[in-house]
Amino acid sequence: MSARAVLAGFHAVTARLRNAPQTVEALYFDSGRRDGRMRQLLERAQQAGVRPISAEQARLQSLAGGARHQGVVALCTASQTPYTLDDVLDRIDQDSLLLLLDGITDPRNLGACLRTAEAAAVAAVVLPRDRSASLSSEALKAASGAIESLPVIAVVNLARSMDEIKQAGVRIVGADHAAPSSLYQLDLRGPLAWALGAEGHGLRRLTRERCDHLASIPLAGQIESLNVSVAAGVCLFETRRQRDLPSARPIGIG
Amino acid sequence: MSARAVLAGFHAVTARLRNAPQTVEALYFDSGRRDGRMRQLLERAQQAGVRPISAEQARLQSLAGGARHQGVVALCTASQTPYTLDDVLDRIDQDSLLLLLDGITDPRNLGACLRTAEAAAVAAVVLPRDRSASLSSEALKAASGAIESLPVIAVVNLARSMDEIKQAGVRIVGADHAAPSSLYQLDLRGPLAWALGAEGHGLRRLTRERCDHLASIPLAGQIESLNVSVAAGVCLFETRRQRDLPSARPIGIG
Repeated sequence: MSARAVLAGFHAVTARLRNAPQTVEALYFDSGRRDGRMRQLLERAQQAGVRPISAEQARLQSLAGGARHQGVVALCTASQTPYTLDDVLDRIDQDSLLLLLDGITDPRNLGACLRTAEAAAVAAVVLPRDRSASLSSEALKAASGAIESLPVIAVVNLARSMDEIKQAGVRIVGADHAAPSSLYQLDLRGPLAWALGAEGHGLRRLTRERCDHLASIPLAGQIESLNVSVAAGVCLFETRRQRDLPSARPIGIG
Repeated sequence: MSARAVLAGFHAVTARLRNAPQTVEALYFDSGRRDGRMRQLLERAQQAGVRPISAEQARLQSLAGGARHQGVVALCTASQTPYTLDDVLDRIDQDSLLLLLDGITDPRNLGACLRTAEAAAVAAVVLPRDRSASLSSEALKAASGAIESLPVIAVVNLARSMDEIKQAGVRIVGADHAAPSSLYQLDLRGPLAWALGAEGHGLRRLTRERCDHLASIPLAGQIESLNVSVAAGVCLFETRRQRDLPSARPIGIG
């Protein structure tokens, strides 16, 4: 992650104002927009001691770098302390849930995966540094503020990091549409990492081979795959269901 | 839906070539792209009797109207027979699952919802004609061919259509983050429609009031909502899980 970030849109900017207002260096807004959502945001900025600056549409568009800004853009210093895979693995417990993204190249998909992961209480997202979309303003917008509270760890070699994750006692389950077992047949309790592959390609061979299990999402139509952020949602929330609902049990062990 | 459609990207064009090749009037491709995916598509086109036309990037971009085209764009006649809500309601059975989208305005979100719905064997998607993103090439691309097999019904008045749906014996469950019951507490078997609201706003009051139940997706992080297509995935696949897995049961009736 770079030392500075441009946040665009209500979700991302509101989350930053809530979690780390001291990092907001400048807040630009469309003064022509006077709805309740904008009013709330401006109130929150005032409470946080941030003075909003009125800006033209063209200026907002240019600041946001093409991301949908909804009339609000913030320039911020990075709020996250540097976080390494070792930090994460030092804190593994029975409820730990990780998400490994093997080469998501579309920034909106990456952002939506981060948003979904944060909402499912994922402890960290791990992705290969050179084979992923960057945390651009478009990705941050789709993430809706998720990276304010979710560590995103870019690693040099995902396969090697998977070995370290397994050595730390975390099982890795890869989502694979050709897997004979469905995710509903797996016991997803205990320290676990989901590995999801790139759009259209799925997991790379080296990644797939390192998974302890492979699981499919049973698709009932003609479409052969889900959008990766939707697949992440189905996998992560089924995991939460099995963990959080006392009487919810998997139907068997795959 | 209009009588003609522009399809962009591999998923959408491949699905159309598979399901209704006779509707493909012209297929444009980037002859500079010679990877396996393009080769497969060209082979499929040949088998379907469609002759691909080489086109420059600028021409492809203009045909696709701004959607990501990946080097392939098809001009097609509409393949779907006109389909009305009455047609759908005439065929309701115990396994029927519908999706009501209350004003999704982002075409990529709309497309991703359709892709998810098709994969979860939804019988039809119902949306308000004047308050939704249109089935633009960007939406069709994100839908990955879903509308080839999934009826999408634009209605004049969603609230009135919900009354008709209920009269046909279909329960309507609205996704609402403030609902006291989670979706995991509801019995989702039997004829059912999920109602999902627009990005950032949720269900409109008139829509929410017509739901038989409201259910939340329990979020465990700081983020207040999921992307609408991810929410659709969680709701629809939990419904499929309850229906399709003999020993899977909800934990109680909300």
